[in-house]
Amino acid sequence: MVDDSPLLLTLELGGIFVFAISGGLVAVRKRLDVFGVLVLAGATGLGGGFLRDMLIGATPPAALADWRYLLVPVAAGMTTFLFHPTIGRMERVVSIFDAAGLGLFCVTGALKALEFGLGPVPAALLGMLTGIGGGIVRDLLAGRVPVIFSSELYATPALAGAAWAVFAHDRGWALVIVAIPGVVVCFGWRVLAIMRNWRAPIARGPSSV
Amino acid sequence: MVDDSPLLLTLELGGIFVFAISGGLVAVRKRLDVFGVLVLAGATGLGGGFLRDMLIGATPPAALADWRYLLVPVAAGMTTFLFHPTIGRMERVVSIFDAAGLGLFCVTGALKALEFGLGPVPAALLGMLTGIGGGIVRDLLAGRVPVIFSSELYATPALAGAAWAVFAHDRGWALVIVAIPGVVVCFGWRVLAIMRNWRAPIARGPSSV
Amino acid sequence: MVDDSPLLLTLELGGIFVFAISGGLVAVRKRLDVFGVLVLAGATGLGGGFLRDMLIGATPPAALADWRYLLVPVAAGMTTFLFHPTIGRMERVVSIFDAAGLGLFCVTGALKALEFGLGPVPAALLGMLTGIGGGIVRDLLAGRVPVIFSSELYATPALAGAAWAVFAHDRGWALVIVAIPGVVVCFGWRVLAIMRNWRAPIARGPSSV
Repeated sequence: MVDDSPLLLTLELGGIFVFAISGGLVAVRKRLDVFGVLVLAGATGLGGGFLRDMLIGATPPAALADWRYLLVPVAAGMTTFLFHPTIGRMERVVSIFDAAGLGLFCVTGALKALEFGLGPVPAALLGMLTGIGGGIVRDLLAGRVPVIFSSELYATPALAGAAWAVFAHDRGWALVIVAIPGVVVCFGWRVLAIMRNWRAPIARGPSSV
Repeated sequence: MVDDSPLLLTLELGGIFVFAISGGLVAVRKRLDVFGVLVLAGATGLGGGFLRDMLIGATPPAALADWRYLLVPVAAGMTTFLFHPTIGRMERVVSIFDAAGLGLFCVTGALKALEFGLGPVPAALLGMLTGIGGGIVRDLLAGRVPVIFSSELYATPALAGAAWAVFAHDRGWALVIVAIPGVVVCFGWRVLAIMRNWRAPIARGPSSV
Repeated sequence: MVDDSPLLLTLELGGIFVFAISGGLVAVRKRLDVFGVLVLAGATGLGGGFLRDMLIGATPPAALADWRYLLVPVAAGMTTFLFHPTIGRMERVVSIFDAAGLGLFCVTGALKALEFGLGPVPAALLGMLTGIGGGIVRDLLAGRVPVIFSSELYATPALAGAAWAVFAHDRGWALVIVAIPGVVVCFGWRVLAIMRNWRAPIARGPSSV
């Protein structure tokens, strides 16, 4: 259902592209070779959806059954490899696109989990995981603690967008009402967090060793 | 079968809770934000079961079909976030509960693998993986080499408990005979290892570069 | 089909053995205990196949249904634990065997993906993943950036071998024509890369922070 819409497909491929760019940039900065750049681009663009699909049993993942899903991260990785100085200077722009990808993935991820029979709470969590999973895989492969755990307000907007999608879907509302406000909430919140440098709280007091 | 017993369910949720506490403590000490604390708590409490279920094809994992499995690590994570100085001082107590969780998970993990048709050796290994997997995921996400590989006698008790469960189950013995000695062997061995600081041997001689 | 050939089974077990040796050597050098050595040996030997099988939905993985697949990495891990100074001195020999394992895994992995209905491009990528996945898992567990991303020409030969297998299989050619040139291409290219220290290119120019 979700995947049949040409608009949603276009947006999803766009989200994969910008996620893959962010993975490629990390790889270039780690001085990885061209293959490492492509793998990190692919893992960042597709990792969240792969994690979701393995968890809900939707195997093989949709991205392995449609060559466009594979071509997009390769194109993003090669673009990053060749033009990284330019792209690196546009990082603010990339992060806005990344927020758009996050908004879309959290909604489509939650809807796919619902299609596979999960309850509302797990579906919302899987929507969030679809959005944030690529960045977690990217950081693990690049040998750093996932940045979304410690330096940015990133997952909460994704959870909010996914929760809206689940809520509206459970009421039987039309896809446009299910999807668009969910994407907008996540995207808008995330962009505000980038603009104003919002961060999630950390624990108070000294942490014992 | 296993999951139908209220006693086993209670024990399993208790195991998830203490595992999640250990994940939350690692996150607080790494100065992660509240979201990172919750994710590490959830990954530690549920990671072993998720790995097992993805490997045996039991998707979606049971924890995604029952909200109690999701509520428990959230509660553990928030508890750790708010009260970490107190909990950090009780670490010896936490590690005893953790040993109890290990004992239970290795047995229930092995029995679930048998239910899905695996042979005795893979079932025992998957029981061990169910017990130790959460800690491995926790340490990977926190950016450190899994502590169970290098500093504690942890996996061997889990393998022993799982092996007992497989052995007794293959003989058709009652659940109480299958489960309780398995849990006790793993728990007792692990507690002794903590008390007496037992460690597994490391390789002799200089290691070449 | 693939697994029914005694020759292919023998070669596959041999590939698992040498991959597991490489995992065990990393673990010994990290001063992990005997359990860590066994886990890293097993994860390196079997990790690529597990990743492939979870992605294509071939669960439980074949390695969990056949005790020989589990015995081999245990034997390799114990061998490494006991004789690591000798094995460490033979690293060049081990890397030649590792190239043979890579050649075989990329072909068998691609064929298994085709059997599960994947298209040619995803099947070739999964063949590559089967070959390189074990090394990625090994390095993640050992707390280092996967070496295949930055220091060796490793994945490209695996992709080439897998691509040949997919191409020949799609034309309906006999298994011997499908498999042997694929293995030879990957093995030969990889051995040349080791001998001549070939590396993949890295991005030009300064990488912005």
